[in-house]
Parts: sequence; C-alpha cells; structure tokens
Amino acid sequence: MQLGMMGLGRMGANMVRRLMRDGHDCVVYDINAAAVADLAGDGATGAGSLQDFVSRLEKPRAVWLMLPAAITGKVVRQVAALLEEGDIVIDGGNSNYRDGVDLGAELATRGISFVDVGTSGGVWGLERGYCLMIGGPKDAVQRLDPILASLAPGAGTAPEVPGDTASRGYLHCGPSGAGHFVKMVHNGIEYGLMAAYAEGFNILQAADAGTKARAADAETTPLAEPQYYQFDIDLAAVAEVWRHGSVIGSWLLDLTAGALKDDPDLKTFGGRVSDSGEGRWTLKAAIDTGVPAPVLSTALFDRFSSRGESEFADKLLSAMRYAFGGHVEKKG
Amino acid sequence: MQLGMMGLGRMGANMVRRLMRDGHDCVVYDINAAAVADLAGDGATGAGSLQDFVSRLEKPRAVWLMLPAAITGKVVRQVAALLEEGDIVIDGGNSNYRDGVDLGAELATRGISFVDVGTSGGVWGLERGYCLMIGGPKDAVQRLDPILASLAPGAGTAPEVPGDTASRGYLHCGPSGAGHFVKMVHNGIEYGLMAAYAEGFNILQAADAGTKARAADAETTPLAEPQYYQFDIDLAAVAEVWRHGSVIGSWLLDLTAGALKDDPDLKTFGGRVSDSGEGRWTLKAAIDTGVPAPVLSTALFDRFSSRGESEFADKLLSAMRYAFGGHVEKKG
Amino acid sequence: MQLGMMGLGRMGANMVRRLMRDGHDCVVYDINAAAVADLAGDGATGAGSLQDFVSRLEKPRAVWLMLPAAITGKVVRQVAALLEEGDIVIDGGNSNYRDGVDLGAELATRGISFVDVGTSGGVWGLERGYCLMIGGPKDAVQRLDPILASLAPGAGTAPEVPGDTASRGYLHCGPSGAGHFVKMVHNGIEYGLMAAYAEGFNILQAADAGTKARAADAETTPLAEPQYYQFDIDLAAVAEVWRHGSVIGSWLLDLTAGALKDDPDLKTFGGRVSDSGEGRWTLKAAIDTGVPAPVLSTALFDRFSSRGESEFADKLLSAMRYAFGGHVEKKG
Amino acid sequence: MQLGMMGLGRMGANMVRRLMRDGHDCVVYDINAAAVADLAGDGATGAGSLQDFVSRLEKPRAVWLMLPAAITGKVVRQVAALLEEGDIVIDGGNSNYRDGVDLGAELATRGISFVDVGTSGGVWGLERGYCLMIGGPKDAVQRLDPILASLAPGAGTAPEVPGDTASRGYLHCGPSGAGHFVKMVHNGIEYGLMAAYAEGFNILQAADAGTKARAADAETTPLAEPQYYQFDIDLAAVAEVWRHGSVIGSWLLDLTAGALKDDPDLKTFGGRVSDSGEGRWTLKAAIDTGVPAPVLSTALFDRFSSRGESEFADKLLSAMRYAFGGHVEKKG
Repeated sequence: MQLGMMGLGRMGANMVRRLMRDGHDCVVYDINAAAVADLAGDGATGAGSLQDFVSRLEKPRAVWLMLPAAITGKVVRQVAALLEEGDIVIDGGNSNYRDGVDLGAELATRGISFVDVGTSGGVWGLERGYCLMIGGPKDAVQRLDPILASLAPGAGTAPEVPGDTASRGYLHCGPSGAGHFVKMVHNGIEYGLMAAYAEGFNILQAADAGTKARAADAETTPLAEPQYYQFDIDLAAVAEVWRHGSVIGSWLLDLTAGALKDDPDLKTFGGRVSDSGEGRWTLKAAIDTGVPAPVLSTALFDRFSSRGESEFADKLLSAMRYAFGGHVEKKG
Repeated sequence: MQLGMMGLGRMGANMVRRLMRDGHDCVVYDINAAAVADLAGDGATGAGSLQDFVSRLEKPRAVWLMLPAAITGKVVRQVAALLEEGDIVIDGGNSNYRDGVDLGAELATRGISFVDVGTSGGVWGLERGYCLMIGGPKDAVQRLDPILASLAPGAGTAPEVPGDTASRGYLHCGPSGAGHFVKMVHNGIEYGLMAAYAEGFNILQAADAGTKARAADAETTPLAEPQYYQFDIDLAAVAEVWRHGSVIGSWLLDLTAGALKDDPDLKTFGGRVSDSGEGRWTLKAAIDTGVPAPVLSTALFDRFSSRGESEFADKLLSAMRYAFGGHVEKKG
Repeated sequence: MQLGMMGLGRMGANMVRRLMRDGHDCVVYDINAAAVADLAGDGATGAGSLQDFVSRLEKPRAVWLMLPAAITGKVVRQVAALLEEGDIVIDGGNSNYRDGVDLGAELATRGISFVDVGTSGGVWGLERGYCLMIGGPKDAVQRLDPILASLAPGAGTAPEVPGDTASRGYLHCGPSGAGHFVKMVHNGIEYGLMAAYAEGFNILQAADAGTKARAADAETTPLAEPQYYQFDIDLAAVAEVWRHGSVIGSWLLDLTAGALKDDPDLKTFGGRVSDSGEGRWTLKAAIDTGVPAPVLSTALFDRFSSRGESEFADKLLSAMRYAFGGHVEKKG
Repeated sequence: MQLGMMGLGRMGANMVRRLMRDGHDCVVYDINAAAVADLAGDGATGAGSLQDFVSRLEKPRAVWLMLPAAITGKVVRQVAALLEEGDIVIDGGNSNYRDGVDLGAELATRGISFVDVGTSGGVWGLERGYCLMIGGPKDAVQRLDPILASLAPGAGTAPEVPGDTASRGYLHCGPSGAGHFVKMVHNGIEYGLMAAYAEGFNILQAADAGTKARAADAETTPLAEPQYYQFDIDLAAVAEVWRHGSVIGSWLLDLTAGALKDDPDLKTFGGRVSDSGEGRWTLKAAIDTGVPAPVLSTALFDRFSSRGESEFADKLLSAMRYAFGGHVEKKG
C-alpha cells in the first residue's frame, strides 16, 4: 500500500527502505532535501514541501512521522491541518504517550485517526525488522496492517500463532497513546537490564582486587581477605559463553559480547550515559500509579550520576564527614 | 570418556543422560538407591556405596558432584580421601566460590585437582545444553574437555569461532573458584534482569489506574491526571511482541511470555520469592571490592521484602508517622 | 495583627491557638460549624459563611487556608473571587508547588498576592512552633511577618542571628511556589531519613538470627556463620542511647525512642505505610532536573511495597523461577 | 578509677583528657612518644613501652585500645599476653564486631574480659561526650562504669531515667561483639541519613534548571516545563530554617547548616566520599540475616560511585547504546 513518510533520519530512511523492499509505495519528505533525493534514488516518490507531500498521497491518506520528540506535536498539528476525515497520522518517534492521548482526542474531533507506534530495533531494524507497539483506533490500525506487517520482523523469527500479530512482531496495544505507553515501559525495562549486566561485568573486572596494593589509611577500607580476589577474568569470553544455554542470554548480551570482543577495555567510551525521556516517563507512571520501581529508578539515576549530576550531593557528604569527624577528603 | 557422577537429583540425573546420549560412560551414585537404579536402567553403571563408586572408576578418576551447597564441602573431602594423585573432583553445584578457592588449595597438596563448574540451564539443560563456567588447573580442565563439550550447548547455537570453547558454551575462567565466581555474578545479574522485567510488567498492569475509584482521604495520594491511565494492556501479548526484534528480547522474556500466556493473572503464585546464595555472595564481592551494585542489591532486597522481611521496618515507619503527625495507619 | 484562617482541622485549629496566645486577632471559618464554635469559645471571631468570613476581615486582608491538597486550588479561587487588590491569600497545606506557581501568576493579574507556606511540625507544632518555608511576593511576606514569627518556634531554640528569620524558624524562600517546593524536598528527605532508621532497627532486631532454626531446603539460603548472630538487642534502649552524643541523633530518633519504649514490638501497627504526595513530587522534580535521588526513591517505593503494590511483580519473579528452574514457591 | 589508654590519636587523646577532667587516673602509651609526652604534660602517666605500660597498671587492670581497625586484633593479643586473670581489655575502635565475638571467646579461656565499645561523637566528643555502645561480660562492664559514665554525655542532655545508663549516653548491649554490632548499624544508618540530606539539597540546588539553556539534541532529554524550575534557593538558609521545629531536624542537619554557611558552594570539597568498614559490614549482616536494606546499600554504593568505581559499568552502558542504536556518547 501507499505510505507517506516524513522525517528521513536514520530510522525513517531505513523504514522506507524496508517497506519498498516489500513492494510498498512510499512518498517521502524531509526539510533536508538531500535525504529526500537519496530515497528518491532508491525508488521513493520525493516531495519538495509539506503541501506537495500531502498532495501526492491517495485518499484516505496515511502519513507516518519519524521526528524528534521535541517537535513532533507541532508537526502533527501542521500536517493534520492539511488532512481530511478518514486520513491517518502515525507518530513512530519516541514521544511521550501523554501527547498521544491528547492528540488522539484532538484529531478525532475532525475524523482523523491518530496512531502512535513505539518502535524498537535501532540500527538493526532494517535487516531484523522493527518491534512495533501500536496505539490508536482499531479500524485505522487494521488499515495499516500491510505496512506494519512489513516493518515487523515477521513470521519465522519464532513459532507463529495464526492470526496473532504479536508473534510476528507487532501488536495493537489499545487506544491512542497505548503504543507509546508500552514502548515507554519497554525502555524503562531496557535501562534496568543494561544496568544489571553493567554492574555484573564491573564486579567481574574487579575480581583481581586482591592482587593490587591498597592505601593503608583511615579513609580506605582494607580488603580483609585478598586471597579470594585473585582472578583475572576474560570479560569478552564470559559474555560469549553466557550467550549459550545460560539463563541470562539476551540480545543485549549478544551486543555486549561483541562490544567487549572489539574493545575489551572499552577505551573508546568515556562513561557519560545519556537517557532519552522514556525511562523518566516510566518512573513518573510508576509514581502516579503507586507501583514500586526501585530497580528501574536506580538504573536511571545511575545514568544521571554518570554525567556528574551527583557532584553537589557528594561534596555535601564530604562536608558532613569533615564537620563531625574531621575527615579530610582523599584525592583520587 | 568415563565420568563418575554423585548426586542424582534433577540436575545430576539430566546431566548423566545428556552425557550418555553422547556416548560417554557414566558411573553413578546417590544415597537414594532408586535414583541410582533409574539411571542404571538407562545404561549407567550404578554403585551401591561411596567405596563401590570410587572402585568402579578408572584411574586417573574424574568424579563430578552435583549436591546441595550446604553439604558439598564435606562430601568433597570424603570423596577426596578415597582418591589418589592425578584424580579430579568436580563440583558442579551452587557452591560459594570461596569454598572452591580453599578446596583447590587443599586438594592440590595431595596432587588431586579440584575443578568447580558453574552450571546454568536449569530444567532445560538436558535438551538445550548447559552453559558451563569452569575454574581449576589447566591440565585437569583440558582432560575433561570431552565431558564439558557434551554437556555444553555446542556448536550451531551461534556462529562458532574455531578453538573457542566459549562460543560452544563452556569456558575455563581461571584457577579453582573462578568457575563459581563467574556463575555467582551470572546469578547476580539474573536477579537484576528478572526484577527489571517484573517491575515493568507491574507498571503495565497498573495502566488502568485511572479507571478505578480511589479512597479520598489524607492518607491516600490522589491520582492527579486519571485520563492518562485508561489502558487495559494485554500483558501476555506485550511479552510476546517484545520477543520479536525489540532491544529487550531474551530467554527470560521468552519464558515470561509463556508464563503469562498460560496464566495471565499468575494466580498459581503467591509472590514469595526465594533466593539461593549467589545473589548474596555477588553483593558481598561488590562490597569487598568497592564496586557499586545498586541495581543488583535492590533486586535481591526486593526478594527479601517479598517474604515479609521488611515488616518490622514498615511498622517502625508507621510508628514514626503516628508520633510526629498523628497519622493513623490505613488498613489494607 | 488580624488573620483569617479557613480550614480548622488539627493543623489549622492549633495554628489559630498559637497565634491567639501571641495576641493576634483571628477570624475563623470551616464548613464544620462545630470547629468554628470551638475556636470562637477560645476567643476567635467565628464566621458562618465564606462571605461572612471575608466581610469580617480588615483591608488589606490576609486569608490563610489550611485545607486538603485535593481541594485547595478550587477554594483559593473561590476566596480570591471575594478579595481585592492588595489582599493576600496564603496556602499552608501540603499542595503541589506547581499549583503555587500557577496560582501566584493568576492572582497577580488582579493585584492579589499568593503566598505558599510549607509547614512542618505536625501535632507538636502548637507547643514547639512550626517550621515555615515561604514563597510569594516580598512585600506580602513582609506584611505577614508578625504572624509568621508567632507561628515559628522563635528565638531561643538555637543561637539567633540578628535579622535572620531562618534562625527563628521561618524563611522566605522565593516567589510563589518556592515555599511548597522547599517543603516538598523537606518531605522527600524525611522519607529517606525514616527509611534509614527503619532499616537499621530491622537489622538490629535480626541480630539473633543465629539462634533460630532455618528450613534446610534448596529454596532457603543457609546462614553460614550463626555464631555471629547471637545477640538479643534491646531496641528501645539502643534508640535511647543514640540520642546522647551520637552522630545520628535527631528529632525523628527522639520519637522513635519513645515509640519503641511504649511498644517494643510495635504490635499496634500493621506496616502499611502511607505517603502523601510530597515524596512523589520530589522524585518528579529530581527526574525533570536530572538529579540522582536513588535513596529518596527507594524510600518511597518501599512504602508502595509495604502496601502490597509489588505483588504482581513478585508473582512474576516466582513464575520465571518456575519456568527456568522448576522452582516451586515456598509458602510463608 | 585508673585506666590504661593505648593509642593516642585524635580520639584516644581526647578521651584521656575527658577522663582526667573527671578525676580519673590515666596511664597512656603510644608508639609515637610525642603523643605520650603531650598527655603526660596534661597530667597523665606516660609509659615508654608496652611492658612499662602494663607494669604501671594496678590489678585488676583495665586497658583501653583506640587503634586503627587493621591492627587492633594483633595488638589485643600482644597486650593480653601480658595480662592476667581478672584483667579487662577494651577495644574502642571501629573494629568489625566479628573480631569482638572471636576475641571475647579467646580471652575468656584465660579469664581475661574483652569489652568492645562502639564510640560515636567524633571530634566533638571531648566537649559533648561520647555515645558508647558496649559489649562484653556483665561484671567487667559494671567495673568500668565510672569510666563509661565520664566518657558519655551524662545526665542533663535529656531527661534522665534513674538507673538507666542509656539516657546518660552509654549502654551495655550484650556479650562481646554486641557493642561493635550496634555501632556498625549506627554507622550504616548514618550513611543513609547523610545521603537523604545530600540528595535533597542537590535537588534544591537544581531548582533553577528552567533558567538554564539545554542542548537540543537527541542525547539530551528536554525539560518539558521550565516554568516550574525558576527558583534560586539559598541552601544555607534552608538548612538553618529546617533546624527549627521541622520533622527533619538533627545533629547532622546542624552540621550541614554550618558547612553551607561557611562555604555555600562547597568549593573546598571534591566529592570523593570515603567509607570506613561499618557500612559494608552492616550490609553483610543484612544479607546474612535476610533483612532488606535497600536505602542503606544505595547510600553505600553512591559513595563507591563518587570515587569513580562505576566507570567501567558506565562505559559498558555507552557501548551497548552504541551497539544497538548507534548512539554516540556526548562529551561532558
């Protein structure tokens, strides 16, 4: 079927390519004309302006936006102003699900369907397919089925249940906002999983602590039994072996094994870990609904700390220690 | 090759079966004679006593113990008393790696090799193979290679690197104790991963909080924006869709999807979550070596709480609230 | 000076009493006529309706609201509708500071000053005085100084710095909203402090763990060195001794010592710990501003868990354990 | 009464001074002869060697050691070798309570009493008195009562209960090891309290986040509602006001207020926070006894992180993000 795609960054462009491979007809637009030309060269229909883009779409139209969260709401409204009853707008970006709830209600008053699609798969999605979590009106989601089926990993990645799209990698989760809600929690979980592996490998790399000299001063806790910390563990090999038959096998572990194989000391990284908004929104949802999420919150806050945001708190701890005990801070 | 297996519970018996399928010759012993008879019926050589068991093994002997951690150390010493220079004792149970360090040194004085094998794979290992993390003297580990290769998942479960046992599911991690050290951290990570999924699904099941009535009293925080919590999420379907192409795909997620499909409300479970020792030892290692492990510790402590162990602390919080603010505890 | 107080619950009534003791003239109103009559009997001027209440106040008026957070915003607007340029509305309740920011801007358009006062002191405030954290326009806060000075603990509770109201227990923290912002963080800290004591006393009460029998099954981690857990600690006495000269002395500890003296086993409490909104809003502020708050969040989430909100997550953990290892849940 | 004090560092020397003020007779020894001479100048009896020290003590002897934890056990045994039945050795340092359990049993075989005294009060103890948590045989503890009573803050710091030493600042908590056990938990709590304040003040200092420019890239979560983060909070003033009548008043807050007054930006501190062993041992006790301690553990792990110990974990997180999403790390 025909789909209009607006926003041709890494994600949007790859999604267009995956769709065209499956025989879909894509009309594409981006404020970056080179990105449009690029995909036009691959067989897409390029548009030179938003008006041009909309005019090239057959009614009822389906417009997929793949844009930074910060501008998505504004652009949805710009696009919707050019659309008509029966058309569909899809937001596949990392938007806050609350915007989906609001936009769904707003566009519904004009007969336009808003569909939010949480999209996981990253740079691997072009080949592996994208896991799609979908919110929106049922008839709109059904109309998009050919598109969704092509973007998703599809049958064969696991035993397929007839009629069950989840086993092919896409799922209608509920009304507008539900797709981004599920994607939000997905990312919250992702942070927790990543932190669990990271902490574990950090302990493994410290398994030789007993072989190292320690300062013998009142500000350094001695290692009481150094004989138990004499191991020199090959982290890349451990990551690899865990991929085979262990309980903790996962795609993240596959990637971790690859990263450690390429760069065992991770020298190319500095350890400042960004977070996009989903982990934060997940915690706000947990707080609002009274659900305990201590692991997910700890994982998020560790990212904040990795960026130096605990510095003032740490200074205050040192100041208190100096005030009650005369403890002078050790230098690193 | 020939292997003596002592301890024929679920794990030990299945390992014997997997070894025999691959043509190995197994001598088996257990204080439960029925377990011995069972495997003898499948082709193993049964032994009626520890002495009998040892006498049926060809020198240099290889004895694998698959016993509860609480008795392993004692039995290793009993067995070792009957062994000779050149023999190997393997502990494949969930023992503390510190025992492995100590036993390795102790048995080495008599020329006996102690090999500790952390074993992951659970009830699925018979078919999938076991992920093996191995500590001990190099020559002993090499002598056991045919056994280890048969127990492990083997080639084909992922692209294999020639000569690299890790890509076939087993790895010599270091001297005695190293195998259980790596398995210990493996389980520590496991707790963190499990908690991340559990918290995430708990948030998803609360996505309908806005549809429910709340008490309107000073002891209940109101839900400020109920319009954003109107979703009725199908958890089993979400678990299924995440298995296909998402960043958080894993074997634990595969199992979770199955569990939620069979019993969406998890009615057969009460929520008292046990922990075996590895998570605890992982944290002690983190503490000794000064490595932060807030996610892994939070995951462990949540299991303690699930068993009611925070009750006194919670009562004290209520007592404080009553003391400073006159707050009377709400009943559940 | 004259003050109108609306909302004569435990907090509001006691504040009126403390003000009248210091010679202030209080006009009081509540939808509960008995509460009005009660304070009228003590010397306050009672009002029978909101209109009556406002009419009895001298211009420029000062109206203090001490109401549940859920209705404060609505009532502020009702009252403000009856006020004029130059009047002041004070919200002394546990409101979200964001409402203060919004109301401050809204009322300013009509020349009415909105002052938000975070109030700590609980049931002890009548005697000890209230710690006041104040937001709002500078001139309004200065006009209220006599009232604020009387409500606060005042000089003598600690060495006083001339001209420094903080050392007398009240502080103008910034524009509208700032008072409730500071109070919000105050309560966030409070949760963390309380949890630290509660966890510590929970460990102390378990110091006899080595004297107790433990189940010896695969689902129960054995206590490796019971000889180190043979203590029978008198918690009330420990709480008392810590009050004298230790680093962890505090008012919360004073109250804890009292509570443990009265009821050493805390039998009168069930351990369901409520939270009002401030701890939640503190975390949202931390999340928005990217500040790590793992201790405060853990403290909040433990309260959620104390109310059974981790049940589904815990069941899922048991379900996973059953799925990979055949572990059958232990009953409590 | 007479007391021998060995170890004349900041703590030991001040304790001798406090004892002499109360009329006690102190024999003092240290490997640092200047420290001995110093106190001899103040009226103590100096000793030139361990033998000389012991010979100057009247039988039955009482020897108090105030030494670094790392050497205490060895020195206790050296001293005990020179003592006789009926003598008492007191360890007032920050030792692991397990050493106290072991030493108590060991010295008891020779009729020597081992008393462990957890001591809180820091550099303020000379004037305020020391909070003492005491373990050991009852008769030995009673014999030391005059010394303990002089070191403790004493009556008047709070309403005194007749015959109750806890209300005068010292407490016999149980057999050998009990004193250090209680002190250990005391310090575990201390870390939690400190972290709660530190996180809270860190949030307060970020209350102006909405006034600052943020990078507008995919790696930086935007601040959705900057209008709510426009406050410029005076942290020192807030710390001060909280000391008066609020629920979170404490001695640590008193010290925090002083520290912030002297150096509002805490420029003299770098934020590398040391930990002595007690926090670590507290967690090990929690782990052994199955008591949840998520707040105390988070507080400890944050100190580890403040010293850069999460670096490898953080790099691994960045490596994973790059692997699945092509995210390039932002520079600080």
